[in-house]
Amino acid sequence: MIKEFPLTKAKIDEVITKHVTPFHIYDEQGIIKTHENLCNAFSWAHSFKNYYAIKALPNPYIVKSLAKVGSGADCSSLPELIIAYKAGIKGEDIFMTSNNTTDEEFIKASELGAIINLDDISHIDDIQRLGIKPEVISLRYNPGHSRVQGINDIIGDPIEAKYGHTKEQIFEAYKRLKEYGIKRFILHAMIVSNETDEKYHIDTARDLFKMVKEIHDKLEIKIERVNLGGGLGIPYKDSEKEMDLNILSRGVKKYYDEVIRANNLEPIAISTESGRYITGPYGWLVTKAIHHKDTYKNYIGVDATMSDLMRPGIYGAYHKITVLGKENQKHDHKYDITGSLCENNDKFAIDRYLPKIQRGDILIIHSTGAHGHAMGFNYNGKLRHAELVLRTNKSIQQIRRAENIDDYFRTLDFDGLDRF
Amino acid sequence: MIKEFPLTKAKIDEVITKHVTPFHIYDEQGIIKTHENLCNAFSWAHSFKNYYAIKALPNPYIVKSLAKVGSGADCSSLPELIIAYKAGIKGEDIFMTSNNTTDEEFIKASELGAIINLDDISHIDDIQRLGIKPEVISLRYNPGHSRVQGINDIIGDPIEAKYGHTKEQIFEAYKRLKEYGIKRFILHAMIVSNETDEKYHIDTARDLFKMVKEIHDKLEIKIERVNLGGGLGIPYKDSEKEMDLNILSRGVKKYYDEVIRANNLEPIAISTESGRYITGPYGWLVTKAIHHKDTYKNYIGVDATMSDLMRPGIYGAYHKITVLGKENQKHDHKYDITGSLCENNDKFAIDRYLPKIQRGDILIIHSTGAHGHAMGFNYNGKLRHAELVLRTNKSIQQIRRAENIDDYFRTLDFDGLDRF
Repeated sequence: MIKEFPLTKAKIDEVITKHVTPFHIYDEQGIIKTHENLCNAFSWAHSFKNYYAIKALPNPYIVKSLAKVGSGADCSSLPELIIAYKAGIKGEDIFMTSNNTTDEEFIKASELGAIINLDDISHIDDIQRLGIKPEVISLRYNPGHSRVQGINDIIGDPIEAKYGHTKEQIFEAYKRLKEYGIKRFILHAMIVSNETDEKYHIDTARDLFKMVKEIHDKLEIKIERVNLGGGLGIPYKDSEKEMDLNILSRGVKKYYDEVIRANNLEPIAISTESGRYITGPYGWLVTKAIHHKDTYKNYIGVDATMSDLMRPGIYGAYHKITVLGKENQKHDHKYDITGSLCENNDKFAIDRYLPKIQRGDILIIHSTGAHGHAMGFNYNGKLRHAELVLRTNKSIQQIRRAENIDDYFRTLDFDGLDRF
Repeated sequence: MIKEFPLTKAKIDEVITKHVTPFHIYDEQGIIKTHENLCNAFSWAHSFKNYYAIKALPNPYIVKSLAKVGSGADCSSLPELIIAYKAGIKGEDIFMTSNNTTDEEFIKASELGAIINLDDISHIDDIQRLGIKPEVISLRYNPGHSRVQGINDIIGDPIEAKYGHTKEQIFEAYKRLKEYGIKRFILHAMIVSNETDEKYHIDTARDLFKMVKEIHDKLEIKIERVNLGGGLGIPYKDSEKEMDLNILSRGVKKYYDEVIRANNLEPIAISTESGRYITGPYGWLVTKAIHHKDTYKNYIGVDATMSDLMRPGIYGAYHKITVLGKENQKHDHKYDITGSLCENNDKFAIDRYLPKIQRGDILIIHSTGAHGHAMGFNYNGKLRHAELVLRTNKSIQQIRRAENIDDYFRTLDFDGLDRF
């Protein structure tokens, strides 16, 4: 079951007098509550932290809301490091999980005191060359063959994934880092994406705990924190189940007890780096029906485009759509819901049964709180639109303005064009 | 066979002292020559014009180069209309082929005196409501079932395409437009994308010429121009063939003679709206190898990301890659060529055999002149990079600067964040 849109038609009718459609609106309370639920599920742990994956919804206002309730940040680029910092997340509450990392990114992460999560053993040379020597370092592990079976297909076969170290490299890298003088160590993996089956995440915890023991046995290195990565999934259809955080937590605890506690390797902190799980269910794209077309099919054209939400267009992803004020009407009209790009995949839904839609109706596209606005492009001259938030106190605030045509043209020199 | 990179290693070594990698570079001479070849192929026509599809490479400098040799512009959004205008393309040399069109776009197209190509019969109501009454109007035809067989799968089955009018609607729409007082009429279709088989395009011409006759017979309306649309394909692999413009032209002429000339419907102007065909082969993404990683596979990390070129990441599209200065070395190393996004599909090539690559080598990713820079997003905080042009006089000029972090943050209010 997916989350209900938190505003009434009357409220939205009022909002759109001030904020033109389309826009994304996020529910601050839902986001904070989900963060808290995740933390509470792991209250048994010596220490638990979710580093919110900024790429899911890279709006510093949302990140600040999360920072206030103790969230960390997972960053993978210079702009994301800046967002974390501006949102008030500091030092080791920032986890820098990048790949093919540039010197500039290592330097900024080091300046901020972030935990650097190395993706590759050769990056040890890079940080040494740059004179970066933090107290703590994390390594990303790619389990390869050992996790091929039963892996979901969003990240895909770990052997085909560009991320992380092989098992052999993990041992060699910790050894080199210890010799380099690093004092504290973290172990990380991230091998599934949007997976609602708790078992996948529990198996990752199991594998990482076993690695912690092996690392301890072989290298006399004590891992202080295990980062299980992100990938906690959310339902996109009402028929899909939500993850059960208790099942997840109990499963992780079982292996923690069996591997870590039983071998006197305690205490080890647990972390995750969930983005989608935290914000995904609590975002909605609010768009207006502006056109109705009947040819070989029935089309409703809306004022949003795939620039606002790429997932249906590029992955064929399903997003629930409701017609505001018509939620209880019969869903007996079959429509394609389209944007205006000159790309036939600019459709939010194909052959979707909905109530009869009229020009001016407001459509709510659900579950756009992650990888929604963040992934938008400017193809075909289409602009990205605004982001609003429904605050915990029920006020509504714009937290990102819509792009305008000057933004679109900002990297062009029109004076130079006259001389060209 | 795809086009050779027009610069030597020595020249690129000089260029990158002034322009940091990555960047796209376009060959003005190649672009102009291709435009001229297309026009020459249709020199038999009473009148021929290619409306260059701006979405392929929406850089006004390139559009201006094309404008100087007589190209028109095909636009589908407000920013694209502005690009055409700024590049010096005026009035009926602008063809506005949009869908789910907004009032704002109709008004701007009308102000510029562009040819408005209506996508849907209901848009007649819109232009009437807006008081727009140009001398000439075009209608987009969607052939539906009649062209299902043998259609390539990029746009897909015409019945599933959101574009255009059914045959019945075409007749009704011309009738209504005539009653409204429109004096001159154009017929348009665009049903394939990146198709190098000349037959598809010839068949479209045949169908449109037959429609011209039917429209004349039924409505006593004389179509003055047939726009065959774009979709002229280019090779992305050396093993793929280029289109033969003579075969295309002769095929179109055969049906022109059989249907238009034989029925005394002459003269009818012919147009196309090719974008990819004109600029696609004449763009290259120049990127530097910054990282080498060996895990379960061998990876070369480059400084470009899918923000610079989305086609491999989202479509699995093939783009040829050469290693500058190593073109003649044995291609005996198998690599994945990756960007730095936290998306495993941020790969420019998978399992590609190339010469041994060292950090600092310059990689040339070919055929990026269309749907390359144009489609880039800012996901994961990644920035879009610069565009250069190799001018006909062999000078090199930057025609779009790279984005910087201020650009990335420009729609955010950081002062407001402090109060949040």
